[in-house]
Amino acid sequence: MTATRFAGVIPPLCTPLHDDWTIDTASFRRHIDGQLTAGVHGIFVLGSSGEVPFLPDGHRRVVLETAVDQAAGRVPVLAGCIDMTTLRVLGHVRDAEAAGADAIVVTAPYYTRTHVAEIERHFRLIREHTELPIFAYDIPVAVHNRLDREMVLRLAAEGVLAGLKDSSGDEAGFRFVLLGKKERGLDSFAVFTGSELVVDAALSMGADGVVPGLANVDPDGYVAIHRHVLAGELDAARRIQERLLRLFTITDVAPPARMGRGSAALGAFKAAMKLRGFIDNAVMAPPQLPLNAEELLQIKEKLAESGLV
Amino acid sequence: MTATRFAGVIPPLCTPLHDDWTIDTASFRRHIDGQLTAGVHGIFVLGSSGEVPFLPDGHRRVVLETAVDQAAGRVPVLAGCIDMTTLRVLGHVRDAEAAGADAIVVTAPYYTRTHVAEIERHFRLIREHTELPIFAYDIPVAVHNRLDREMVLRLAAEGVLAGLKDSSGDEAGFRFVLLGKKERGLDSFAVFTGSELVVDAALSMGADGVVPGLANVDPDGYVAIHRHVLAGELDAARRIQERLLRLFTITDVAPPARMGRGSAALGAFKAAMKLRGFIDNAVMAPPQLPLNAEELLQIKEKLAESGLV
Amino acid sequence: MTATRFAGVIPPLCTPLHDDWTIDTASFRRHIDGQLTAGVHGIFVLGSSGEVPFLPDGHRRVVLETAVDQAAGRVPVLAGCIDMTTLRVLGHVRDAEAAGADAIVVTAPYYTRTHVAEIERHFRLIREHTELPIFAYDIPVAVHNRLDREMVLRLAAEGVLAGLKDSSGDEAGFRFVLLGKKERGLDSFAVFTGSELVVDAALSMGADGVVPGLANVDPDGYVAIHRHVLAGELDAARRIQERLLRLFTITDVAPPARMGRGSAALGAFKAAMKLRGFIDNAVMAPPQLPLNAEELLQIKEKLAESGLV
Amino acid sequence: MTATRFAGVIPPLCTPLHDDWTIDTASFRRHIDGQLTAGVHGIFVLGSSGEVPFLPDGHRRVVLETAVDQAAGRVPVLAGCIDMTTLRVLGHVRDAEAAGADAIVVTAPYYTRTHVAEIERHFRLIREHTELPIFAYDIPVAVHNRLDREMVLRLAAEGVLAGLKDSSGDEAGFRFVLLGKKERGLDSFAVFTGSELVVDAALSMGADGVVPGLANVDPDGYVAIHRHVLAGELDAARRIQERLLRLFTITDVAPPARMGRGSAALGAFKAAMKLRGFIDNAVMAPPQLPLNAEELLQIKEKLAESGLV
Repeated sequence: MTATRFAGVIPPLCTPLHDDWTIDTASFRRHIDGQLTAGVHGIFVLGSSGEVPFLPDGHRRVVLETAVDQAAGRVPVLAGCIDMTTLRVLGHVRDAEAAGADAIVVTAPYYTRTHVAEIERHFRLIREHTELPIFAYDIPVAVHNRLDREMVLRLAAEGVLAGLKDSSGDEAGFRFVLLGKKERGLDSFAVFTGSELVVDAALSMGADGVVPGLANVDPDGYVAIHRHVLAGELDAARRIQERLLRLFTITDVAPPARMGRGSAALGAFKAAMKLRGFIDNAVMAPPQLPLNAEELLQIKEKLAESGLV
Repeated sequence: MTATRFAGVIPPLCTPLHDDWTIDTASFRRHIDGQLTAGVHGIFVLGSSGEVPFLPDGHRRVVLETAVDQAAGRVPVLAGCIDMTTLRVLGHVRDAEAAGADAIVVTAPYYTRTHVAEIERHFRLIREHTELPIFAYDIPVAVHNRLDREMVLRLAAEGVLAGLKDSSGDEAGFRFVLLGKKERGLDSFAVFTGSELVVDAALSMGADGVVPGLANVDPDGYVAIHRHVLAGELDAARRIQERLLRLFTITDVAPPARMGRGSAALGAFKAAMKLRGFIDNAVMAPPQLPLNAEELLQIKEKLAESGLV
Repeated sequence: MTATRFAGVIPPLCTPLHDDWTIDTASFRRHIDGQLTAGVHGIFVLGSSGEVPFLPDGHRRVVLETAVDQAAGRVPVLAGCIDMTTLRVLGHVRDAEAAGADAIVVTAPYYTRTHVAEIERHFRLIREHTELPIFAYDIPVAVHNRLDREMVLRLAAEGVLAGLKDSSGDEAGFRFVLLGKKERGLDSFAVFTGSELVVDAALSMGADGVVPGLANVDPDGYVAIHRHVLAGELDAARRIQERLLRLFTITDVAPPARMGRGSAALGAFKAAMKLRGFIDNAVMAPPQLPLNAEELLQIKEKLAESGLV
Repeated sequence: MTATRFAGVIPPLCTPLHDDWTIDTASFRRHIDGQLTAGVHGIFVLGSSGEVPFLPDGHRRVVLETAVDQAAGRVPVLAGCIDMTTLRVLGHVRDAEAAGADAIVVTAPYYTRTHVAEIERHFRLIREHTELPIFAYDIPVAVHNRLDREMVLRLAAEGVLAGLKDSSGDEAGFRFVLLGKKERGLDSFAVFTGSELVVDAALSMGADGVVPGLANVDPDGYVAIHRHVLAGELDAARRIQERLLRLFTITDVAPPARMGRGSAALGAFKAAMKLRGFIDNAVMAPPQLPLNAEELLQIKEKLAESGLV
């Protein structure tokens, strides 16, 4: 069904922290093993779900080294090299190379007011400086610009990009990329959706991979959707996806009047992971605010409704 | 007129680069001396005009050390500590402290979807980790959120913030901050505008300082505006400001269809600085695109119209 | 599969105009008949595809009367009552009632800076003034705010809203509405997607209806997708949908540098409708710009590729 | 100082309503007389402060006829012709002509995704259909696009536009328009700011007129600022402007969690107008929410602090 080794369910791993905000590597290793036991086909570290914008470079290196070591070649490790512009990204690329990551994931420039021609130059310059496969990461909610579809396909055809992680939330645009891939014969170009709520639909449309943050909480669910879609069992896939929609409402438990949507979602993921025993500590990096006791109780109830605790 | 030592014309210095994108410290030292000779009252390094999002941490340290050394206590040096979240900012704060900067400038978190309560926690946490005066940097075009006015004044009253650099472009909101400062007796709270086109008006309204990017090209003009406003010569100030509006159109020479507005502006500043002999090389950090020959010619003509070459 | 009479393929009809921008009722009647012959299950007039923001109230009345008369009860007629606020919308509601429309479609307030509590009051006030079923129209690209999901479901449960037309482009949010409908037993609440590019997926997820602008050009394609999904023939549905994605690229033929995205899309629809003989004249209401000869030629080629001319 | 008869303080009048949301013409006439007694130099009806997006066309006609009749040629009457696109605006233009308005005020198209070339065509088409002077109304908070500066100046030079009402909040951009006016010798082109909080600065920069919504509450204050600036008494102007900033905080009394910023501001204006005896009823058009008793009390206190009750 897909011609790339980067395919299937590839969760964007959350990063467990100690109370002093250093990396809890023991929890992280246990979490990785749990994901692999569930059958995921790759792991993506240092993405938004991994609190990458919150982690100093030293912390990031610990994440990379731990992930590569723990995965131990069982599945590919994709490494987010997330920073504002080219020279800064290249520093993270060197760290990813040193750690032994299998691919890197790079956004458009941000903070600066950029332009499609500069975004294209950004990816080309990175390509000149690494042999690692490069995934373009389309995440407008974070970087406040969109990746141009034609540019992505052009860079794919030229071998600059090995894949796309689309977290734009624009399923129609995503479909145009899939169609462009097919029309241009870009068999080895890996197209992933970052949306955890339409994974069944994305796979039906031909996505190579899915990168659902919620898989940190329920990897089995996403692995099952993937298996069902491959088997043509779309009704079964849809039923699981609908259960996961309900589960995803843990991310709305903390109200918008109290904290940012990032903290609300990551806090919920981490709280649920702790409740399931995947990690020891649900602490988040500053300045994110913690969930309160009432919110944690709601998360526990939602996990119970989903049969996960 | 103002009770803070951070006052007057405090240009956000551009960062001269070599062709290999390392810092051209010789040009940088010459540029700093030129600014001080013109009479500026402080310098702000590693702001947006200084290409801070484009510079790796090592480059940033060179900028900090060079600036502090060259200023040699003649004027205060404000250091941009620009990064996505608290722990990452704190790394830059330590570098600023080590270099001997006189104050730090910090934005709201970005890339992550944040919240006013988290922005406030961000500034408070930074305050707990440094003795340096902290300027809040309100720059929505880069970070995609606004600083809450009441929060800024509250943190000023509590001594968390020593100042505000307002690059929001919202002069009415800026005026509310000035009014709040006066009403609450926050005499030592330094309020700066980052807008280079209404400097005369901002100073008339009571701004302590102005941080005009265009002062990289014409420091004498801004120093003269400041002097005229202090002397009550508003017509003279206005005439110079209007000339500087015309000069500012160098930032529109490169069309939006060809490059980002950041590159167009910074490229124009650097080209004009080179034409005036302030720096040796107008190269910009990647992935920014360079101006072309025709655009450079237009910049030269505009400098000539303004009597600057 | 669905418990509402508002279901299936319900195209948002384009409005044919004469050169003097009055309604070309002859073409409009012919177009309606063509759509019904193709098997559509309802028609939606005076939506965005119908150039509703461009039509004076008198023109709108002609559209309503012509559509109701021509449909002649064969399928339901949904009428867009699109205006900025409550009292103005109510004028259009009276016109829709007078013409005999079967339902009305209403957006959130716009131009004014509104609030979810005011949007809710808006729908409740309209409900108090009409017996017609009300569809909420979620179209942030036009009104620059989103409909709150909980509010929509609450108003559905109370009988204020009969349906939702979701043109938000947010398939995950759409799916939450579908899930909420199911969980709360809102069987008669009709949920439509306005996205023409994921119709197969939306129907698979449980959407009651689809409102694809591109059905003005190829109603048979959308009717076939609907029939295939109902029959469980998802591969067949997907193949047609992929052909329609390629066809949809007619909306990108006119470049963004030359005209607005609205004109580019509506101009392409009308040009294609004329080329297929559905309408006599592709003129658009001012101030929209017309497509040029080269662009029309590209549209013809794309129609040919799709086997439609 | 200015070569246009459209100059000075030209308040955007609020529209008093009865409980049934019809126009309270008696209050409106009294309010107009009060403004003229205070010395305003023109009146602008059917702007955002006049709740124009909330008023049906019949209501708008009553406003126009009442205003022209009551002004009785003492000052010019500018009429907002606010609608989504050209043909709809032209209907309002005919009403303004019929009522005897002295000029019309027109925004860029909205609801539709427009383009600068289409905005320009919009103004040109309107020019072809009326002899009345046309003011372009730059109000991005409502229409979600900006007027291009070069386009405005080009249309001014060609006589298409007689003036600009700039409610963009972008004082630097406003200043470029003033500079362009001077450089191109467009003496009769009237440039107004819609910002009520920097009126002193705008007049110092050379604005022909100011259109402050808060003048509905305190016309004397704005007339005094205007007089002081003309007399070169900038300190006196600034002191009044600062008092009016404090007064403007009545618009923040109702919290964002409870209602839209439009309702909060208009509700505060109308409440203050009623407290000052200018109008009989502070009701707002639906779906706007009313202020509550506590909020009204705060407004009364702020009026008292400003010496207005």
